[in-house]
Amino acid sequence: MDLFQRIREEAYEANMQLPELGLVKFTFGNASAADRERRVFAIKPSGVPYAELTPEKMVVVSFSGEVISGHLRPSSDTPTHAVLYSHWPDIGGIVHTHSTYATAWAQALRNIPIYGTTHADHLPIDVPCAPPMADEMIKGNYEYQTGMQIIQFFQEHGLDYRQIPMVLVGSHAPFTWGKTVKKAVYHSAILEEIAFMAYLTEQIHHSGSYAAQPARLKEALIHKHFERKHGSQAYYGQESDD
Amino acid sequence: MDLFQRIREEAYEANMQLPELGLVKFTFGNASAADRERRVFAIKPSGVPYAELTPEKMVVVSFSGEVISGHLRPSSDTPTHAVLYSHWPDIGGIVHTHSTYATAWAQALRNIPIYGTTHADHLPIDVPCAPPMADEMIKGNYEYQTGMQIIQFFQEHGLDYRQIPMVLVGSHAPFTWGKTVKKAVYHSAILEEIAFMAYLTEQIHHSGSYAAQPARLKEALIHKHFERKHGSQAYYGQESDD
Amino acid sequence: MDLFQRIREEAYEANMQLPELGLVKFTFGNASAADRERRVFAIKPSGVPYAELTPEKMVVVSFSGEVISGHLRPSSDTPTHAVLYSHWPDIGGIVHTHSTYATAWAQALRNIPIYGTTHADHLPIDVPCAPPMADEMIKGNYEYQTGMQIIQFFQEHGLDYRQIPMVLVGSHAPFTWGKTVKKAVYHSAILEEIAFMAYLTEQIHHSGSYAAQPARLKEALIHKHFERKHGSQAYYGQESDD
Amino acid sequence: MDLFQRIREEAYEANMQLPELGLVKFTFGNASAADRERRVFAIKPSGVPYAELTPEKMVVVSFSGEVISGHLRPSSDTPTHAVLYSHWPDIGGIVHTHSTYATAWAQALRNIPIYGTTHADHLPIDVPCAPPMADEMIKGNYEYQTGMQIIQFFQEHGLDYRQIPMVLVGSHAPFTWGKTVKKAVYHSAILEEIAFMAYLTEQIHHSGSYAAQPARLKEALIHKHFERKHGSQAYYGQESDD
Repeated sequence: MDLFQRIREEAYEANMQLPELGLVKFTFGNASAADRERRVFAIKPSGVPYAELTPEKMVVVSFSGEVISGHLRPSSDTPTHAVLYSHWPDIGGIVHTHSTYATAWAQALRNIPIYGTTHADHLPIDVPCAPPMADEMIKGNYEYQTGMQIIQFFQEHGLDYRQIPMVLVGSHAPFTWGKTVKKAVYHSAILEEIAFMAYLTEQIHHSGSYAAQPARLKEALIHKHFERKHGSQAYYGQESDD
Repeated sequence: MDLFQRIREEAYEANMQLPELGLVKFTFGNASAADRERRVFAIKPSGVPYAELTPEKMVVVSFSGEVISGHLRPSSDTPTHAVLYSHWPDIGGIVHTHSTYATAWAQALRNIPIYGTTHADHLPIDVPCAPPMADEMIKGNYEYQTGMQIIQFFQEHGLDYRQIPMVLVGSHAPFTWGKTVKKAVYHSAILEEIAFMAYLTEQIHHSGSYAAQPARLKEALIHKHFERKHGSQAYYGQESDD
Repeated sequence: MDLFQRIREEAYEANMQLPELGLVKFTFGNASAADRERRVFAIKPSGVPYAELTPEKMVVVSFSGEVISGHLRPSSDTPTHAVLYSHWPDIGGIVHTHSTYATAWAQALRNIPIYGTTHADHLPIDVPCAPPMADEMIKGNYEYQTGMQIIQFFQEHGLDYRQIPMVLVGSHAPFTWGKTVKKAVYHSAILEEIAFMAYLTEQIHHSGSYAAQPARLKEALIHKHFERKHGSQAYYGQESDD
Repeated sequence: MDLFQRIREEAYEANMQLPELGLVKFTFGNASAADRERRVFAIKPSGVPYAELTPEKMVVVSFSGEVISGHLRPSSDTPTHAVLYSHWPDIGGIVHTHSTYATAWAQALRNIPIYGTTHADHLPIDVPCAPPMADEMIKGNYEYQTGMQIIQFFQEHGLDYRQIPMVLVGSHAPFTWGKTVKKAVYHSAILEEIAFMAYLTEQIHHSGSYAAQPARLKEALIHKHFERKHGSQAYYGQESDD
């Protein structure tokens, strides 16, 4: 029996959702699911079209980045996943996409401002955009450094990865995570919608008034919407939801 | 036999239409259908994916906001629906979405200007955008206050909810209504299209001339298009249409 | 046997294509097919959802606007179709939509500039936008006057309806036509694509240079692309194509 | 047995992918597949709807532009394909589309700036836009001259067609190529996505800061992303990938 059956299946299902949700094209993007007790994760093989994936083709890799099981080469972004799993104890899944709107914000090197309650329903601050890495990091172990860049950016800015389940890597694209890979996929889809809405909000604001930037969402609304879904008194969803 | 069968089915069908029409993603959005004689309405349960909904899972709630029948927690927006039903005697259905273009106008805190006959076919003024609520209202019974905010906004601006079946709640998203929930769904879809067209109209206007705002639709066209569908001499559709 | 079978079927098929091509939503839009010998045309009934249409429900109307056959009320835009058929001897089909991008240009009261060969493949000048009608025309027999507005606009500007198979009615939406209703549907779809491309062209031009308007397509390219498809020496398509 | 069976099938499959990928509408666009030993290629017949295509309807043409086999007239763009095949020894497939975003950049007469790693994953410079041809070339053997324009543009700018598998022909639309027609189709789809992202990047940049153009991607990232997929030490994909 396969010790890694659960994470292979979870990773497979999550990867298959990415093109269905319009978040990836061709072989772009990858999702992984972790078994935190065994300190391993299952991830998409590199460059294999989604239509050819199966749970068995998922590659199992340790949190330190070595392939444990699988015949194919894992995603080239594997070291980034490994760094995030080894540094952040409360995540069980990671997703990387080049989804169009989120990637455009990353290419513009901008945080996505919090303009409405759809955003505040999911995170209480702007979606952070980490700057592109220094050249020596890019030339070195690039994908490992991408993970370190994210970890350090969160540390330096006092961000809590449990509350902010997404980041834009400047000039590149988004990464999202969650307690499960299913949640990480959800965060990727939400991020894309937030990115689309914020883009439109700025366009509509400027075509109306030519003024400075739109106002960010007021604090009371941020607090209310984030807390009603995520606070200790949350009342959105059914009792059994986590 | 279930006293509430009709409204459960109507609410179920309306909720299922929302993702089909591209108006909601995941568990966003909710539709309700009222039985005005019994002063109750059926509404989507909170946080349940659309694919898992059934008519039986709809929650029946009184116009004063108490759950009358159903095993699941109703949508967190239920108090908003209750307020609208209890104040406005001629509505039988309400829809709330975070549809992308309408929400972007709400986030930009702008009314949607009436630029063409597609808009005038459905309402004779700009789509109104109510300002975000005062902080004390947000911190209080937020969803109840959202309903009161809409009611008061219509009163203060002399708007007739029978003629203007939609509103943007600033920083948040749209609500629409109608004699039936089917009409409310239709109004949500129309609003999204009007929001998209008005956005494009301003972009095309500015990229052509750099002038001030596009001119609003002339009064004669507003009158003609609204009256030919909704006036006492309406001649659009078949005789039997309401 | 139904004398009008052919035009009922052609009109039915053309109407059904409109939602499939993404050109109309709900009951917006209408297509008609003419029998020029009998001086009648078949048109969509007013306000009937596309899913409920059948060839038998198409309404047959004379070129002077009287219903000849059919149990339903014809499209409210029927007088516009009648005017175009009675004035222009070489058209066999007409389509009216509120397709999003074309309508946005109509709402911005702008001709669609000819920016590329995709446009020139179909017509050799800007897509004309007729101004909104005078108030007295709007208040009168509005839909008849819409047709007259188009006819007069083409006369005043020396436009040949055989070469320019489309017009934007300012503040309203597009009309297209052709030798057959199938061609008219094609022209509606092409117009929407041209409108989308011209919108993007201006956005991309301005975000690059902030200069004045993009340059229109050079004359030699307009001539080449229009003539290779439509000129006396046309060599696009197969020999048997008209 | 048909000597040209392989290229007919490859060309057929590639052409059928174009509407599936949203890259062409109606009869726009064409794909061809070459048999470099026989110095022939199979190409889509002119003006035939995609739904009516079969492998047998593909027209086989020599690299010097003469029809070798087939009952239909080949695509009007056939001379352009012939020129590219006869000048560039390492390409086995060519695709021409009027895909919306790429065509808008061509109409705006702009190179697509390299703003992110999605772009650098595929080519290490801006997507080049060749200027519209001189009038005498347009009036002459236009489609042949289009091919010559591309060849000369690459020569003059020192571009390597093996590294840069795409070009925008100014005022017209894109051409892409590759070792196989399957790769050429892939490049068309990638180009459309890059064009969409770069458009959004500029919009988001300007709506945030009103500054000059967004910064191009830094050299270290361009190098890293291009080389990890295409360099001598490439490590993306499986060992067997070319």
